[in-house]
Amino acid sequence: MANFSLAIHGGAGVLAKTNMNESLKVLYLKGLKEALEAGRLVLKRGGTATEAVVAAVVSLENCEVFNAGRGSVFTHTGTHEMDAALMEGENLSAGAVAGVRIFKNPIKVAAAVMEKTEHVLLCGPEAENFGTEHGLETAKPDYFFNEFRHKQWLAIRDTNQTKLDHAVVLPSSPPDKKFGTVGAVALDVFGNLAAATSTGGMTNKRYGRVGDTPIIGAGTYANNKTCAISCTGHGEFFIKAVVAYDVSCLMEYRGLSLEEACSYVVKDKLVKIGGEGGLIAIDKSGRISMPFNSEGMYRGFFQNDEPNQVFIYENAEEI
Amino acid sequence: MANFSLAIHGGAGVLAKTNMNESLKVLYLKGLKEALEAGRLVLKRGGTATEAVVAAVVSLENCEVFNAGRGSVFTHTGTHEMDAALMEGENLSAGAVAGVRIFKNPIKVAAAVMEKTEHVLLCGPEAENFGTEHGLETAKPDYFFNEFRHKQWLAIRDTNQTKLDHAVVLPSSPPDKKFGTVGAVALDVFGNLAAATSTGGMTNKRYGRVGDTPIIGAGTYANNKTCAISCTGHGEFFIKAVVAYDVSCLMEYRGLSLEEACSYVVKDKLVKIGGEGGLIAIDKSGRISMPFNSEGMYRGFFQNDEPNQVFIYENAEEI
Repeated sequence: MANFSLAIHGGAGVLAKTNMNESLKVLYLKGLKEALEAGRLVLKRGGTATEAVVAAVVSLENCEVFNAGRGSVFTHTGTHEMDAALMEGENLSAGAVAGVRIFKNPIKVAAAVMEKTEHVLLCGPEAENFGTEHGLETAKPDYFFNEFRHKQWLAIRDTNQTKLDHAVVLPSSPPDKKFGTVGAVALDVFGNLAAATSTGGMTNKRYGRVGDTPIIGAGTYANNKTCAISCTGHGEFFIKAVVAYDVSCLMEYRGLSLEEACSYVVKDKLVKIGGEGGLIAIDKSGRISMPFNSEGMYRGFFQNDEPNQVFIYENAEEI
Repeated sequence: MANFSLAIHGGAGVLAKTNMNESLKVLYLKGLKEALEAGRLVLKRGGTATEAVVAAVVSLENCEVFNAGRGSVFTHTGTHEMDAALMEGENLSAGAVAGVRIFKNPIKVAAAVMEKTEHVLLCGPEAENFGTEHGLETAKPDYFFNEFRHKQWLAIRDTNQTKLDHAVVLPSSPPDKKFGTVGAVALDVFGNLAAATSTGGMTNKRYGRVGDTPIIGAGTYANNKTCAISCTGHGEFFIKAVVAYDVSCLMEYRGLSLEEACSYVVKDKLVKIGGEGGLIAIDKSGRISMPFNSEGMYRGFFQNDEPNQVFIYENAEEI
């Protein structure tokens, strides 16, 4: 049992151990640690779970090693199209955006949708008008430019392939399967849950493809009765399996614990349909589950004033 | 038990009885009957549930009294932005589009997403590029022009209000609450289920607002293990309540019958959060449930070779 608690992820399907080196690892762990601290700062001063997950996701969006915000992958046309969602467990309030290109922090646009409109999901260029009219900070294309992402994109630009993040490490590298998304879930001292997710989607994506991230019930969900969840993985499978709400229903309707429900959905149901990825989840007691069926998942958590724990593969990393 | 069966809807929250007249009623009933016949033709010759729901929805999209395809409402900028989704119960295949403006039949674009891509959801102008590259039929703006819809829009254009379909009957009329969407669910002779939904959204909508229609799990869902569902109503509430998948989970995890699950979700859970609307659902035995918590819902069904039954308010209408 925890009074407040927070978990984050920076994407499932990390770099294969054989492609990971110390300097990269330091960057990932630093990004995770900073995001946990951003969330902790909010929760420790009695802030809400919503404020905490937004703070943590903003920190991850600002870190260029993760595929969200600044580090977003390139689309087929060389732009960046980002999706984000936010949900509160107390009253099922939710906000989301899909296909926005100009905002520094898409999760803040999702929060504005939740707080300032009667709507849940705004898409495309018109969603950008909403964000600019509400004063959300924009960034020029060079803010999103990243040499590594650019090489990923150049390697497959002229094909019809789309690639999950990190799937192309370098043109000459083996085709690892990696998924880029960031997310956070939290319990606050008021007993409320919240979930937030943000992504740059798939490298070389076309046609306004949207994955599970901004879809309430698929990639993001929160309900004080059960849990708060943020997913990462091959989005199409997460949409078809309605992953986040499935975990909630297994708890509510079948009486499974958070751990049982998460494990069943990620390690059994998703595996059977070929859906690679993982999720982070928290229940009203502050229990945390972070299952994945890929080689690893950038992730971390803390409970109350205990130290941060961060992970890339099976075991905790030293920080 | 039925060998094949199909249900359709043309939106929940019909014109209030006091605003309905005979000539309008004839148009609605004719539209419903034609859609049922389009689906029946497919199922009788041994076609699939997917083909049948697409045929029925195409018929409804082509009928200008329903808010989908030809009859779509006007957005704030005077355009038409349409959403549609299709899902198959056998293997959870799904396709959807959001915010497309130029296609005669958005449900056919959703079908092409399902059949020709690895993706589930395509949004906005780029989704239109996908549709045109795949040869989907487009229509000029005047195809979507409708005097009644135009008056609805003019009446609230300069406000910041959005209105569910029919909410503005005429500038001088009482503000009925009406919801415009069309949809179909079917069981075919192979024992497979499918669901399809299509909408023009809310009158005067802005900022690329997307409702529950194209969201798998919210407005549209199909799974041979449980049921196929198409929703209509105030989309934001249907998204937060993950309505379609909730019905499926109540059947799978709690053992409720189709009728029990549908009734609980629409007449209890949705009512408690203020979510007005309804849904049509079919299970693997061909049983049909069509609950709504609004004054009425344009709807109809048939089972095997039995006659069509169509409804607007509580009781069946004569056709």
